[in-house]
Amino acid sequence: MTTYPRPSHIFPGYVLDLDGTVYLGDALLPGAKGTVEALRAAGSRVVFLSNKPLQTRADYAAKLTRLGVPTSPDEVINSSWVLARWLQDEAPGAALFVIGEQPLLAELRAAGFRLTEQPGEIQFVVASFDRTFNYRKLQIAFDAIRAGARLIATNADRYCPTPEGGLPDAAAVIGAIEGCTGKQVEVVVGKPSPITARAILARLQLPASECIIVGDRLETDIHMGREVGMATAVVLTGVTTPASLAASDIQPDYVLHSLDELLPP
Amino acid sequence: MTTYPRPSHIFPGYVLDLDGTVYLGDALLPGAKGTVEALRAAGSRVVFLSNKPLQTRADYAAKLTRLGVPTSPDEVINSSWVLARWLQDEAPGAALFVIGEQPLLAELRAAGFRLTEQPGEIQFVVASFDRTFNYRKLQIAFDAIRAGARLIATNADRYCPTPEGGLPDAAAVIGAIEGCTGKQVEVVVGKPSPITARAILARLQLPASECIIVGDRLETDIHMGREVGMATAVVLTGVTTPASLAASDIQPDYVLHSLDELLPP
Repeated sequence: MTTYPRPSHIFPGYVLDLDGTVYLGDALLPGAKGTVEALRAAGSRVVFLSNKPLQTRADYAAKLTRLGVPTSPDEVINSSWVLARWLQDEAPGAALFVIGEQPLLAELRAAGFRLTEQPGEIQFVVASFDRTFNYRKLQIAFDAIRAGARLIATNADRYCPTPEGGLPDAAAVIGAIEGCTGKQVEVVVGKPSPITARAILARLQLPASECIIVGDRLETDIHMGREVGMATAVVLTGVTTPASLAASDIQPDYVLHSLDELLPP
Repeated sequence: MTTYPRPSHIFPGYVLDLDGTVYLGDALLPGAKGTVEALRAAGSRVVFLSNKPLQTRADYAAKLTRLGVPTSPDEVINSSWVLARWLQDEAPGAALFVIGEQPLLAELRAAGFRLTEQPGEIQFVVASFDRTFNYRKLQIAFDAIRAGARLIATNADRYCPTPEGGLPDAAAVIGAIEGCTGKQVEVVVGKPSPITARAILARLQLPASECIIVGDRLETDIHMGREVGMATAVVLTGVTTPASLAASDIQPDYVLHSLDELLPP
């Protein structure tokens, strides 16, 4: 096993990616439970981060709690919640057409937005991960954007890994809309966007230099952390392998075989 | 009315775009019937061209005949027919997954291809104009391409103009697949592809220098004609306006207010 640099001290703030970092499917990864417990016991602030807009923050908190890591919804940050916060600043109460699943629609309704399928009324088309995407939704998005609506997205992941391979994610919806309209998506709030980084730091109430982000993806977790000035650690329990790490332009400060290597020796 | 250059002689071969050039919706454009009759009477060869894969060549011929321009299917070239010919050269009898409508599927079955939804068997994913596009089809395309299938397309039009605005065309399907797979479409056979230009010249049995292409779109009809060495004429009865013509990098040899200006004065 290659020896990689590991953190030598406890940070005031930890940002932990979920899929591939804390759990895989429906099981915690080795060391996850003990590591989170040790960090909390040391007085550090911990938030969990996901780009996935298929569940609400409460769903993620409930899953973590069920798996043995007691978590409250406000300790979770995901792309649907970040989108709702961003839109509340940008255009409170706006009329939206959302290509997404029910939890995202519920999150946006709860945040005071009006969801509509009338192209002439739509101010923003929201592209997201949607396993019920179809031509009818594409047509509404096309008509709305031609009538002047803005195009934004929760996340820009190509696919969501599954044991069978993967599910086409929000990048497919963005690509379909960009393809027929010729308009580029204006804002993608999910990681590696600085919009997500700002939401995390506001939640942690800490400067970036006192935080470390830990994830399994170089191009989202590690890229965003470096851009915003956090320490970064990639964990080799998800999509990144020693070979893909060696080949990448994006290099983290630390490399962990499993999450418990986050604790100083 | 601005005076533009017009052809001063009859060409041996004419390539006439359909939508916006010969007809608009269900009505011939002014001068279309008389012009085609005059060209045929002068001994010129005439073929009709469409990127639209929603009907077969026989459907287009029947429509033209019904509107008063008697036409046989072999005088029509459209992107689904060009795709079938191209694939017969490239991979006869191959296993295909087609995101398209019934006439395209029928054309490909008739050309000897096997249509399948089993990702592991699929050799080519064909992206096309499909008003029944949905997530299920996207998932099959994603799985097939991840398993090694090649991605090709009938056409790359962003949208098909309608009185109400437009219908998302094949570029939406291409964009969705490219978005989730990260793979670029390998071949688009429809105009302005040289594959369509070669199919036209093979049908006319004439060198490009003896042919003129007439269409309403600079970026497809006129672009392809110029690339292959045909004379080119844009007709201002479709999407191109005097203003968009003046602003374009793609300039035709001739500009016609209506199709009858194709005949020498």
